[in-house]
Amino acid sequence: MGKTIAKLAVIGSTGSIGQQVLDVVRDFPEKFRIIGLAGGNNTSLLSTQINQFQPKLVYSPNKLDFQDNIKFQPMEEMACHPEVDIVVIATSGKIGLAPTLAAIRAGKRIALANKEVLVMAGEIVTKEAKLMQAQILPIDSEHSAIYQCLQGENGNVARLILTASGGPFYKYPPLKLAEVTVNKALEHPTWKMGKKVTIDSATLMNKGLEAIEASWLFSIPLNKIEIVIHPQSIIHSLVEFADGSLKAQLSVPDMRFPIQYALSYPERLTNNRLPRVNLAQLNSLTFETINHVMFPCLRLALDAGKQGGTYPAVLCAADEIAVQLFLEQRIAFPKIAEIIDKTINLHQSVDNPNLEEILAADEWARNIALKSVTRTNL
Amino acid sequence: MGKTIAKLAVIGSTGSIGQQVLDVVRDFPEKFRIIGLAGGNNTSLLSTQINQFQPKLVYSPNKLDFQDNIKFQPMEEMACHPEVDIVVIATSGKIGLAPTLAAIRAGKRIALANKEVLVMAGEIVTKEAKLMQAQILPIDSEHSAIYQCLQGENGNVARLILTASGGPFYKYPPLKLAEVTVNKALEHPTWKMGKKVTIDSATLMNKGLEAIEASWLFSIPLNKIEIVIHPQSIIHSLVEFADGSLKAQLSVPDMRFPIQYALSYPERLTNNRLPRVNLAQLNSLTFETINHVMFPCLRLALDAGKQGGTYPAVLCAADEIAVQLFLEQRIAFPKIAEIIDKTINLHQSVDNPNLEEILAADEWARNIALKSVTRTNL
Repeated sequence: MGKTIAKLAVIGSTGSIGQQVLDVVRDFPEKFRIIGLAGGNNTSLLSTQINQFQPKLVYSPNKLDFQDNIKFQPMEEMACHPEVDIVVIATSGKIGLAPTLAAIRAGKRIALANKEVLVMAGEIVTKEAKLMQAQILPIDSEHSAIYQCLQGENGNVARLILTASGGPFYKYPPLKLAEVTVNKALEHPTWKMGKKVTIDSATLMNKGLEAIEASWLFSIPLNKIEIVIHPQSIIHSLVEFADGSLKAQLSVPDMRFPIQYALSYPERLTNNRLPRVNLAQLNSLTFETINHVMFPCLRLALDAGKQGGTYPAVLCAADEIAVQLFLEQRIAFPKIAEIIDKTINLHQSVDNPNLEEILAADEWARNIALKSVTRTNL
Repeated sequence: MGKTIAKLAVIGSTGSIGQQVLDVVRDFPEKFRIIGLAGGNNTSLLSTQINQFQPKLVYSPNKLDFQDNIKFQPMEEMACHPEVDIVVIATSGKIGLAPTLAAIRAGKRIALANKEVLVMAGEIVTKEAKLMQAQILPIDSEHSAIYQCLQGENGNVARLILTASGGPFYKYPPLKLAEVTVNKALEHPTWKMGKKVTIDSATLMNKGLEAIEASWLFSIPLNKIEIVIHPQSIIHSLVEFADGSLKAQLSVPDMRFPIQYALSYPERLTNNRLPRVNLAQLNSLTFETINHVMFPCLRLALDAGKQGGTYPAVLCAADEIAVQLFLEQRIAFPKIAEIIDKTINLHQSVDNPNLEEILAADEWARNIALKSVTRTNL
């Protein structure tokens, strides 16, 4: 990066990750400048962000008044705009797919917080990124940890170990899961995140999506990716090398760490506003094996990842619908896994799918998932 | 390294580290070949090693019969022999200094297990290594961990965190330390090491020497090096970067890990004979602050390191004598620190000492340390 200012487009600036991206940008006005902001339905927050960062380009799904010197620009065009150096994909769900591909095709650095992009279309995305030499820097804490641990190594990886906090229900009596409320499920023990991701953390679906994502990002087969429960969320993930030695990356659980790393890489910027780890004060870091029986979503995700084809896209779509239904209090917590399972079982996968086939599978799965609920009137 | 065979001289082949170096060499006959073996007083073990590895060059302090095709060679000459690629300094104490400097001046890779080399003469050794572009790969587990964590990073280190098992007496009632037997002190909870290092671990002197060593090896001031008690010896050390993110290196406590890394660097060789870490089985990794009152040797070492000059050489020499006296059951455990403290207090340090001044301070300190005991008849 050196002394030049990196120019950013933030796709999904009003979401949880987007807001924290802007926090980091605020910490380093001499390093980063916002060129584009694409917000969601929180129009008032987007207006505040526009006032503060004065971007050249703005996207909003809603009508929005702004000054004449600011241009309305669709997300895909923003992502490949010649003035942009880094495109932050901070949306969740399939909406991130098109701007990610646009950014890759323009050879931009992508700071990727969106899991579905790689889960749905990992093969297409990583192939095109390689072809265009577009760097994909992960913003998930686990993937950032692995990315950091792989620096300066010549490969020879034996396995990746993703850590999982276990979410709010890890110590719950299994039968109590049926009575879980939305508010309880949104109380994540260690991370402050958006609603969808928080529910995915409670079902452990999140960890399954992360395993698939890691598999694409680091070209490692899923059977070499392990998951271990680590309730303190201090060790964000580990890499075991062929010699049996492991490297881990640690920090206080705060998304600004992986965000800043993705933006400043390969530099590390001094940021004293970020909290420090004090190992003696923490006293202990604990680890447990995964309870697959209590959290069937994880197995569903890993299986879909291993089967490949359009199964991962169907997994994502069914999960998005099921989580939405849970948030709307239309289904009980354990029904999330049931809906996904049913949808996957009904699916006819396409091998080596192209983008249209992936999006068609997504559309199909959303309908099926929704219908399965209407039918059973849950 | 690639496909060529690296040719090794092992200085101190009959000691604990030396034997484990040969274990690693035995695991990779296609990668490493022994050219030189310099043993200690265990002549029968040295003979066995000579028979097995058929080195071209041998050094022994005692009379030794071997075949005609093997040449007797002083350690310093062995260290700079043109056929040697890597010189392993596996001795402890000042005996390692001359062969290390000889190897550096010949531009060899040095795999360094000897702490005193850098503690006594860190400035001279690191300066010459830089000048000659001789790589120093540490074999201490802590320094190997830091070396690994710094790979692929552009510096910007905030602090180094050395982990310490705490040794066998970390949970002892302080008053009981006076009654500690030699056998008890030699029972290290996690590591299998030589006698001198094991006693240094019990007093925590070892950790002080390591801090000074790390300071030279990584060009980091001592006030940016912290020590934390970690009884399980799984995390071997950590680096905190300027952004507040940390990297750690982990393995089962087994010296073959750092040895193999130092020999094969930058490659990592698949070695399934080495045990693997299972985090869930370990269940927890714990951390505590250091108890400086109970272990005064650590403070003595850190102070000597900060004062510099010939103090670190005096520290090493006084410690070597004091530990020897304890092993001979001539003094009680707490007297180790007292002897070192007294010796350091009597010393007139020389600033920016040359090698002769360092060796003179060493000689002086040995006499003073010995006399302090004779006088008090402990």
